[in-house]
Amino acid sequence: MLKVGIIGATGYAGEELIKLLLNHPQVKITLLQGLVEKSTPIENIFKNLRSRTDLLCTNLDLEQIISKVDLVFLALPHKVSMEIVPTLLKHNKRVIDLSADFRLKDPLVYEKWYQIKHVCPQFINEAVYGLPELYRSYIKKTNLIANPGCYPTSIILGLAPLIKNSKINLDQIIVDSKSGITGAGRMPTPKTHFPNCYENFSAYGIFSHRHTPEIDQELSFLACKEVKIVFTPHLLPINRGILSTIYVDLKNSMSQQQLLEIYINFYKKEPYIRILKEGELPQIKDVAHTNYCDLGIFLDKNRKKVLIISCIDNLIKGASGQAVQNMNIMYDYKESSAL
Amino acid sequence: MLKVGIIGATGYAGEELIKLLLNHPQVKITLLQGLVEKSTPIENIFKNLRSRTDLLCTNLDLEQIISKVDLVFLALPHKVSMEIVPTLLKHNKRVIDLSADFRLKDPLVYEKWYQIKHVCPQFINEAVYGLPELYRSYIKKTNLIANPGCYPTSIILGLAPLIKNSKINLDQIIVDSKSGITGAGRMPTPKTHFPNCYENFSAYGIFSHRHTPEIDQELSFLACKEVKIVFTPHLLPINRGILSTIYVDLKNSMSQQQLLEIYINFYKKEPYIRILKEGELPQIKDVAHTNYCDLGIFLDKNRKKVLIISCIDNLIKGASGQAVQNMNIMYDYKESSAL
Amino acid sequence: MLKVGIIGATGYAGEELIKLLLNHPQVKITLLQGLVEKSTPIENIFKNLRSRTDLLCTNLDLEQIISKVDLVFLALPHKVSMEIVPTLLKHNKRVIDLSADFRLKDPLVYEKWYQIKHVCPQFINEAVYGLPELYRSYIKKTNLIANPGCYPTSIILGLAPLIKNSKINLDQIIVDSKSGITGAGRMPTPKTHFPNCYENFSAYGIFSHRHTPEIDQELSFLACKEVKIVFTPHLLPINRGILSTIYVDLKNSMSQQQLLEIYINFYKKEPYIRILKEGELPQIKDVAHTNYCDLGIFLDKNRKKVLIISCIDNLIKGASGQAVQNMNIMYDYKESSAL
Amino acid sequence: MLKVGIIGATGYAGEELIKLLLNHPQVKITLLQGLVEKSTPIENIFKNLRSRTDLLCTNLDLEQIISKVDLVFLALPHKVSMEIVPTLLKHNKRVIDLSADFRLKDPLVYEKWYQIKHVCPQFINEAVYGLPELYRSYIKKTNLIANPGCYPTSIILGLAPLIKNSKINLDQIIVDSKSGITGAGRMPTPKTHFPNCYENFSAYGIFSHRHTPEIDQELSFLACKEVKIVFTPHLLPINRGILSTIYVDLKNSMSQQQLLEIYINFYKKEPYIRILKEGELPQIKDVAHTNYCDLGIFLDKNRKKVLIISCIDNLIKGASGQAVQNMNIMYDYKESSAL
Repeated sequence: MLKVGIIGATGYAGEELIKLLLNHPQVKITLLQGLVEKSTPIENIFKNLRSRTDLLCTNLDLEQIISKVDLVFLALPHKVSMEIVPTLLKHNKRVIDLSADFRLKDPLVYEKWYQIKHVCPQFINEAVYGLPELYRSYIKKTNLIANPGCYPTSIILGLAPLIKNSKINLDQIIVDSKSGITGAGRMPTPKTHFPNCYENFSAYGIFSHRHTPEIDQELSFLACKEVKIVFTPHLLPINRGILSTIYVDLKNSMSQQQLLEIYINFYKKEPYIRILKEGELPQIKDVAHTNYCDLGIFLDKNRKKVLIISCIDNLIKGASGQAVQNMNIMYDYKESSAL
Repeated sequence: MLKVGIIGATGYAGEELIKLLLNHPQVKITLLQGLVEKSTPIENIFKNLRSRTDLLCTNLDLEQIISKVDLVFLALPHKVSMEIVPTLLKHNKRVIDLSADFRLKDPLVYEKWYQIKHVCPQFINEAVYGLPELYRSYIKKTNLIANPGCYPTSIILGLAPLIKNSKINLDQIIVDSKSGITGAGRMPTPKTHFPNCYENFSAYGIFSHRHTPEIDQELSFLACKEVKIVFTPHLLPINRGILSTIYVDLKNSMSQQQLLEIYINFYKKEPYIRILKEGELPQIKDVAHTNYCDLGIFLDKNRKKVLIISCIDNLIKGASGQAVQNMNIMYDYKESSAL
Repeated sequence: MLKVGIIGATGYAGEELIKLLLNHPQVKITLLQGLVEKSTPIENIFKNLRSRTDLLCTNLDLEQIISKVDLVFLALPHKVSMEIVPTLLKHNKRVIDLSADFRLKDPLVYEKWYQIKHVCPQFINEAVYGLPELYRSYIKKTNLIANPGCYPTSIILGLAPLIKNSKINLDQIIVDSKSGITGAGRMPTPKTHFPNCYENFSAYGIFSHRHTPEIDQELSFLACKEVKIVFTPHLLPINRGILSTIYVDLKNSMSQQQLLEIYINFYKKEPYIRILKEGELPQIKDVAHTNYCDLGIFLDKNRKKVLIISCIDNLIKGASGQAVQNMNIMYDYKESSAL
Repeated sequence: MLKVGIIGATGYAGEELIKLLLNHPQVKITLLQGLVEKSTPIENIFKNLRSRTDLLCTNLDLEQIISKVDLVFLALPHKVSMEIVPTLLKHNKRVIDLSADFRLKDPLVYEKWYQIKHVCPQFINEAVYGLPELYRSYIKKTNLIANPGCYPTSIILGLAPLIKNSKINLDQIIVDSKSGITGAGRMPTPKTHFPNCYENFSAYGIFSHRHTPEIDQELSFLACKEVKIVFTPHLLPINRGILSTIYVDLKNSMSQQQLLEIYINFYKKEPYIRILKEGELPQIKDVAHTNYCDLGIFLDKNRKKVLIISCIDNLIKGASGQAVQNMNIMYDYKESSAL
């Protein structure tokens, strides 16, 4: 059994990781760490875990990690992850980092968007961006996964086939995304106060959301030239799920059938991408609590406009599920184990 | 124009008071005070008030109240109200206190449930419990209203006709209440964090909610003997509204028609009580954003069981609307003004 | 008192009209008609109206309208309105039609999108598109108002200042709109079944929503040349409100301040348009239950991208409130009466 | 592999059965039948099943059932089940019936509450009421399970320990239950129309809900004398879950610890009952999507009042999960398989 630890176990991503990994036939959770004052049964923090596990959550302690686990999931805030990753790697631990710390390849871009200097830029290039649909062969071999952000997962998966195949204008990509409120984390704030969310809806982070450089970087890699999207996140008054509505312009005309086939071909071996039939609409409830990304592709032939709707569960395919999928690939387990 | 001030203007009750009073033809809001670091346009706090008022909210300042207003609404937490009420009354201000500080007639009961000694018990007896359906004639003449709690309003209105007419056993009254989340106030807490409320439901304060002694006191006055109910509040995953399901046992059999007539007679002159026809079910959406209390009365004749469903908007009839109704009575305005 | 009738009183727009008009000091509702089998107190249909009115709702009957009212609100489905409007106008009734029947100036466009031949195209040009912010002077004088659709209201108000002032490229306007579920009407369908909506979100009507030609028409009038937007509506799991996120490209660079001033100037006399300060975000709860349209304007100066967020209550500014505003203008009442 | 069929596969209980059984290591779904016009991939009906199964749903056909399955789950409306159960049993099929048809032991009671004569009363006594916590040994051996209703499951599990141990007065049991809206089924009605449920709450079926005789019957069996509860269901504006608040009177005083121990002992071998620690509150989100029943037990010692809060997922422990648990017991599989 692979011994795994979840560091940052008291957030929503941590909770989902615990639930998924408790069902994994080849994995044993040997360590949970989080912001707790003293050692606490995890079922006291996540009451739905009552009687399902007697694991304790302890405070952050690097030595414990080193002595008790083979693989570490870091579900920590950015800035904290990069402090400990070098030590973990030095001790031959494999690391799946769910924070943003190793996603951006350029430390100056990181510094600009996260307002802090990167403390171990030499490790950035070791990190593989953990989107299996694009980087599966690298994921197999790496010791450090930068697990993608939730918005980027939905957007990159929606755009990759068209960009990789050079089918669209790169200077006119508009992405209008909507996320459930678990995306804002487990800490109560005025923004997440129930009466401020219920029967409400709003945008936020206009022209300034931190996932923007991550999306631009990955799309630029696919395009082999610089891409800058317009990205607007919104806060949906539901718990889970992201739906991204993506607007692009085709370079050349094509039929709906040709368009769909680009997607079908691109993802033909992917177990967690579902290309919907012509006219079918993705919706959040179809992917909630699953690792699927549903893609609906629509064409306005006359105007060469394409609209892509990409739908995921922000906590599963957008975070913990994808992390488990990456683990399965790294250890050559069945890719759907525990998913 | 009557000059009124709202002290504690930055909470939900304050917000509703502002909205109601801005539409009152005989009233002018001359003062808003609340927990603000510096003088702030109230529209910056409640964005829906943009362009509807240029009132400023200033910090608590007793002298300002004394110099600027005739009538004061105190939408403050308990403990704070009783500190300032004596001074306000001494300066001949009339006061409508939405806190719990003057509701309980026995200062020892207050001390037991609120864990603090009452600082001006001599004023408690001057206070009139501001439930117009029971105490209208006293409300007209008093300078100090103890505005009822939200749960007590729904429950006392539901039970008063049967208790006042000595129709039920007093030792077997069960009240199962459900309230929207604005009832928990404007301060974010884990309990009111959106993902903890949405797609969820729970009870709280079992055998221990602070509204219990207030309800027991008022029902005991009506019964002329001690009444102790069983009261369980629950948190509904909606913003506004309270529905109380009340279970009682009749002393003697009666028909559904006789039962309804007790209610119809009791409330026949009341503008804000609606007795539903036989078989009709009260629901929160019918009273939301109004000052109405809807009552549905159901009989299991064989078993002499009566079920009363009482429904109000917790922020209107359960707080600010009732406060305005009390003001209208105190000043002999049309009782429905601004409501 | 102006005698008004509401035809189609049993839908959501009818309900809101009743509630608004009951509070209008110069108006008396003398007739309610709708799809009812027999004459029914309206409070039996909309239970929240209990004790607030004893109006009856009767079945459709053109003669009754002619004999009892001065002004008719038609809250009917399209196709039904155009059947009766000619008769109403012939009898010198003034008509505010909330359906789509007289919004599109070109009967062939109407026929294409609504799959039915227009039965009285000669009246289309008499109709004034009832958006007060653009057509107030025409509204004053007309006998037939084509009251705008909910999505078009939010979108046209968001774009008019920039288009009228020739500031943007007209071939690259993307509108991503989100509407509460009352927008789908009062008839239960699988699409509006609670478990299909709650904890869910989806787009619909992609490249094909019937409000598209209405929006294109009005924007084209403003631009004095043909405009075709890309418009995607989504279904928000809330009751009321529309938020439209609008993406446009400036022709020439300008500052955020210059941009805001275009909006402030354009709407400087408008009582129901609120231009938010730089950085402030419109949200549905700030306009719910009001006739306001909140506009937030954002600039990415380097890329000359402008993002406009336009927010209304679909049932008020998007339907019944706007209809009442139009009535107030037609009869020279205070524009805010009952609003 | 056990061949199972799900008849009535197009309702919510059917959907959950499919999802659960697809993960069962010893079971193969060989047949889905439901109200479909023609043979249809089930993923076209439940879109979240896309790519997870290629099962077809066909119309009701008794011969197909007989030829293709060993065990039949009937997720049909009442009245339909009893028409086919005799034939299925005659062909040696084992049957788990999720309808009400075989729950009531007295056919006259069935007739009174369901307004139809029972067509095969001779089979009622063969049926075992499928509540594993009470009837596990009978479940093992039967060929016909009457799977309990959702409300009854939550209520009987909450009361069984006290009634079986003769600790409470039987003539004063009040049950106030609240259920998510999936409980009303998959057919759109005004009652389940989103705008009628959202930001709303109401009771229904007062003194008349069809689950009442089922609850009374089972409690009477436990008490060995007639029990009649007062039961009020309410409609919660959420998708899933039931929370029942149960009020009873102890015959004799006891301590909180003694009270808890009665529950702990009664359920000590039960994998799906969780007795919460003193003071902990059950909530729907802790049991959602699981087969658990969470029980919180509260005592007002002075008044000898006990309040029990019982919480389940109406679609899992209240229907499909319990059905799978019953199957696991019938076939001696691990009781938690697929759960």
